[in-house]
Amino acid sequence: MDVKIINPFLEAAVNVLKTMAGMEARPQKPYLKNDSIAKGDVSGIIGITGDAQGSMSLSFTESCIKAIVSNLFGTPVNELNEEVKDAVGELTNMICGDARRRLESNNILLQSGTPTVVAGKNHSITHVHKGPCIAVPFSTEAGDFVVEVAFNNS
Amino acid sequence: MDVKIINPFLEAAVNVLKTMAGMEARPQKPYLKNDSIAKGDVSGIIGITGDAQGSMSLSFTESCIKAIVSNLFGTPVNELNEEVKDAVGELTNMICGDARRRLESNNILLQSGTPTVVAGKNHSITHVHKGPCIAVPFSTEAGDFVVEVAFNNS
Repeated sequence: MDVKIINPFLEAAVNVLKTMAGMEARPQKPYLKNDSIAKGDVSGIIGITGDAQGSMSLSFTESCIKAIVSNLFGTPVNELNEEVKDAVGELTNMICGDARRRLESNNILLQSGTPTVVAGKNHSITHVHKGPCIAVPFSTEAGDFVVEVAFNNS
Repeated sequence: MDVKIINPFLEAAVNVLKTMAGMEARPQKPYLKNDSIAKGDVSGIIGITGDAQGSMSLSFTESCIKAIVSNLFGTPVNELNEEVKDAVGELTNMICGDARRRLESNNILLQSGTPTVVAGKNHSITHVHKGPCIAVPFSTEAGDFVVEVAFNNS
């Protein structure tokens, strides 16, 4: 999996969180994901088609997503309710859309399905595809999240 | 959301489980899904693009998926390990592919991303899209599963 298809997703995550929630997200060391334990309590998942076929997920700790959505809504959020789940879906959409626009300028054309949000302590996520899955942890002042990008080898 | 785009997913679920695992799945009464509690312990999720944009999920009870994968592998499966999660991903792929072929004969052309599998007791799934989400429960001799199909209104 070429790094040129991964980096736009990471740049998009930083950009969307800064623009929408005023949140600075600092990327940490990427790693190849071999286990399937999502490092978070809420995950947004989106399927990707077009010049590459795959999936992207964002997994947030509870403290991190509450802080992000509080900034997004402009009012404190204290529980992981349906509004927070919808917001995770919209963030997933926005980050994927931003990444797709960045890839278009490299002539890589992708489409995406609609996002699905999973909530639950200690849930695991497995991307089932033919290729490596790259995980990039991010830290913010309010906690951590992980972006995972998985594409079939083409 | 037109029923003609939903039914092929249900027919595909019945067909794939019968063909691959020798399992009879009987559809129960469909309902509009308003809450986000997946009725199962393991879910396969796949994003859909093309003439309609959406997502499909399959949520299995632990007993049901163990029985299905035992039949699929031809050997008893006693825990929800990585092989079972991969099998859920492949079933998700096969059901979505079968549905897409059925829809092609109605001139509805869909593509799909790669599947993602979520495992965890009491996890919730929310399809974030602009339109209704149809849930169809199925019963089998080994337990129940639910197929959910969500598409943006076009």
